[in-house]
Order: sequence, then C-alpha cells, then structure tokens
Amino acid sequence: MFKKICIIGCGLIGSSIARAIKKNKLANKVVSSNRSNNINKKVIKLNIADEASSDTKKIVKGSDLIIIATPLSSYKNVVLKIKSSIKHGAILTDVGSVKKKAILLIEKNIPKKVSWISSHPIAGTEDSGPESGFSELFKNRWCILTPSKQSKNKDIKLLEKFWKKLGCRVDIMDAKQHDYILSITSHMPHLVAYNIVNTTLKIKKKKDRNIVKYSAGGLRDFTRIAASNPIMWRDIFIQNKENTSKMIDEFISNLKDLKKAIKNKNEKKLEKIFTKTKKIRKEIIEAGQDISKPDFGRK
Amino acid sequence: MFKKICIIGCGLIGSSIARAIKKNKLANKVVSSNRSNNINKKVIKLNIADEASSDTKKIVKGSDLIIIATPLSSYKNVVLKIKSSIKHGAILTDVGSVKKKAILLIEKNIPKKVSWISSHPIAGTEDSGPESGFSELFKNRWCILTPSKQSKNKDIKLLEKFWKKLGCRVDIMDAKQHDYILSITSHMPHLVAYNIVNTTLKIKKKKDRNIVKYSAGGLRDFTRIAASNPIMWRDIFIQNKENTSKMIDEFISNLKDLKKAIKNKNEKKLEKIFTKTKKIRKEIIEAGQDISKPDFGRK
Repeated sequence: MFKKICIIGCGLIGSSIARAIKKNKLANKVVSSNRSNNINKKVIKLNIADEASSDTKKIVKGSDLIIIATPLSSYKNVVLKIKSSIKHGAILTDVGSVKKKAILLIEKNIPKKVSWISSHPIAGTEDSGPESGFSELFKNRWCILTPSKQSKNKDIKLLEKFWKKLGCRVDIMDAKQHDYILSITSHMPHLVAYNIVNTTLKIKKKKDRNIVKYSAGGLRDFTRIAASNPIMWRDIFIQNKENTSKMIDEFISNLKDLKKAIKNKNEKKLEKIFTKTKKIRKEIIEAGQDISKPDFGRK
Repeated sequence: MFKKICIIGCGLIGSSIARAIKKNKLANKVVSSNRSNNINKKVIKLNIADEASSDTKKIVKGSDLIIIATPLSSYKNVVLKIKSSIKHGAILTDVGSVKKKAILLIEKNIPKKVSWISSHPIAGTEDSGPESGFSELFKNRWCILTPSKQSKNKDIKLLEKFWKKLGCRVDIMDAKQHDYILSITSHMPHLVAYNIVNTTLKIKKKKDRNIVKYSAGGLRDFTRIAASNPIMWRDIFIQNKENTSKMIDEFISNLKDLKKAIKNKNEKKLEKIFTKTKKIRKEIIEAGQDISKPDFGRK
C-alpha cells in the first residue's frame, strides 16, 4: 500500500499503528523517530519498526506516509524538523485528539505539495509507551478524518483505506465539529475522572486516611481513566479550551440541579434521570463500542 | 454455620450471597422473599434458594440469619413485616450503602433480643436482578460491619466469619465514618457518572446528533456506572445527602480550579495534577481492588 511509512512518536498509538502495518503488510518499510534514544532502541528491539532514530529530518526522507503520533505540544517542533525533508506528493497525517489549532499550524508550515489530512482514531488504553501498543487496538473503532485545505481527494481515499485496513470505521468531519463532539465524548469524561481522583487525593491528604482500599464501589473505574498520559491530556485540554470550558459549565449546572433534587428528596426526578442514563449504555453496546459483559470480566 | 438463612430481596447482591452460601455450604436452608412473584419463581427455577415467597412475615420465621438486600427505601416496609415473626437470638443484617438512617430505623423497630449488625460488602456490577448474581462477587472485596447498639459481640464475630467465608476482608466502622468514606469512594463517582451521561444526553437531544458512536474515547466507561440500578442509587443519594452535598461542593470547586488552569494555559499545574492522579491507580491495583490489565481486556 505504501513504500515507506514514518511514524513520529512511538507511544501507545504510534506503536500500535506500526504493529498493525507490519501485521497487515501495508508498507515495505516502517521507520520511527523518537526524541529519546532509549525509545528508539526499544522500538528496534521489540521489532516495532525497521529503523528508528532521533534524527527526524533524516529518517522522514522518502516516506510516502508520515504519521505524527506525539503529544500536541510537540507538533510545532516536529513540523519545523521535517518541513525541508518531506517528499513532495507524500501524505502527512497525525492522530491528535484536537484538530483546529493543529491543522492551521501544519498548513502554515508544510510545503504545498504535501497532502495534509488529519486523522483521529478514537481508541486507546490507560497505558503509555511503545511496549503497551498492540495491533488490534483499532479494530471496530471509529477514525475521524479532517482533510486540510492542502489535501488531494485521491489521498483522502487512500488514507481512508489505510485506516480501514487497520480495522477502523471512517467518518469525515471538519475541525470545528470534531473538536466539539470529542469534548463531549472524550475530553470531558477524562477531565471529570482527573477531577474526582484529585478531589479524593486532597481529602485523603487532609484526613490522612486509607480510603483507596474501598475503591471497588466506583472510584476504581475513574482511576483507570485518570491514569492516562498526563502530557497528552494537558495538551488536549489547553488546545480545546473553548469547548472544554463550555462543557465544564454545562456539567456544573447539571450537577447543581442534581444536588438540588437530592436536597429536596425529589425521588421522581432522580429516578427519571438515572433511568434515562441506563438506556444509553445499550446503545453503546449495540454500536459495538463496548462489550456487555458486566464489570468487563474483571470479577 | 447457620440452620436457616433468609435473604430479603434477591437482586444482584442478594442472589450472589445466596449462591455463595450454597456453594460454601454455610446453611442447611436458604430462603428468599421478594415482592414480585415472578422474581420468586425465578429464584426457585435458578436454584438460588430452597424456598421463595412474597409472604416475608411467614418465610422469615425460624431463620437464624436474616439479610435485607432491598433498596434502602424499602427497609421500613420490610422491618414492619418481619418485626413480629423474627426469632429471638437471630442475627439481622443488611447490605446497604448508607448506614446512619437505616441503623436508627431498624434499632427503633426490631425486638431487643435480635442482634442487629449492619453490613456493607463493597462489590457489584452494573447489572441488576437475580440472574445477574454470581458466587464469586465478594472475593477479595471489603465488607464493612457497623454494629448497632443492639448487637452481641459473639454475633459480630460470627457475622465477620460469614463474610470471610464469602471471600471478603472485613473492617468494622461506625455509621458516620462509613457514610463519609463511601460518599467519596462510591457515591460521588456514581453521581458524576450519572451527571456526565445526563449532560451528554441533553446535548444529544438539543443538537440531534449521533455522538454515542464516538464513545470509546472515555464516555463509555461512565455509561457502565450510569447503568446501575436507578432506584438503589436514588435512595443512596437521598439517604446520604449531607455528605453527598459536601462532596459535590468540593468537586465543583476543584473543577473550577482546573477550568482556570486550562484557560490560563497553566501547563505546569495541569501536568502536576494529572501525574498525581496516575499514581493512585497503582495503589488500587496493589490493594487488590482492580486488575492491571489495560482496558480490562475488552480490546
């Protein structure tokens, strides 16, 4: 499908893509660039890529597909490194969770003859690093493509085919829509998980009590999400700050409503809300985005 | 261990206890009482109990251990039904998630010669009903005992042994402590999950968009918790409303702090908080309250 694919940033997502490329034989050669030489060594040792180097400018040369899989705050650095060595006619994509600012930044800096099409495979676990990736990560997950002004139709089709080979279902969306929807389905849940775990830690410190051991009643689920990559999420919230702020306001306003209903012992209202929220679970399972097995079989 | 155990309310928790009693041979006879005759039939058909009837007053007779496993709002009804037929010298317990009000209510209504010791096994899944229970539910989970004024030491020891046979680790705590700690580790996480799913539903309705399909980025985890039994949780929040209100206020205040940090692009602060929250995950796994497998193997 491609001659040479270069993955910049071989963490959970980058290494999962590399593994899936190799497994599905989608390129003759997969190379990777990471700032840390330890990571580059690991990538080679684990046979994730054929070559790995911290010299991004050099290793990107001749690639017909370049995938940026670093935290959003590194994009500027990456783009400045590759802009003079990227092949004309190549496809450039990324896997970032916020689109608007990233797309503008790259449009401004990349040669016109490069097809820049942003991607967002909605998949992940709470683990980070090249050792945590696996080739099946994208199976049955949605990947949203957001073509920039600088993208050719035939390349959008090719990239779509690429993600489908990795197991994804593909939707095309503009940056504004993407950043709004993801602030609801992904960014806000993460922020809330971070906040509830942070609130717990503050109380734990103040009261000096071991409350963690009683976490099986709900808290433990949030700690999984709140164990996600700190740098990646810091960048996401800041790059999508307008939508995140709006969502925080809506969330707080609804939470205050619930508080009032609890205070007034408004049984009917609470039951109605909690019954509605139960239904959406079924929709998610039917959409193939989770399994119905209770507790994810961790019992 | 017991001659006859009566379980009032054979849902997820009640039926899991019954199954574990049978599996571990902890009683000669297990009976169950449920308001709905359909449930009573199901309980017999699934071989969860030896007898089942909606006549609670009658079926409770002669039991040396009675376990109330209904939603909290049914306690008053249950107690009024059993108060004249409960055996003197029997142990009465429950499995409720809030203690203070329930303990007072039962102390007021139950004959003095009954040993009333409240229990809270911190275990569960998002499923409800007798078909969803399983005997291993309590394995390695904490069970908190809150003895009332009306409990004998030897009975506390016996009940402790009972929960340990079911696989629990047991702690003893007063009602005030219990209700405070559980508001942090269980009630608040559930309320927040209900609230984020409710917020999503409101936006979905307003915008008429299918956003559920993109839920693999975080939201789906919350929908699992927000699929828990609506009646049970309505009762929990109302019975623990003072602690819940306090926790909501702390949660909102911390969330506003995060909003400010995001608005000001305070990278250092965000990174510091998200790094702290990552650590607690390790503690929970080390405490045996979750497994380290990422994504609970649902990939």
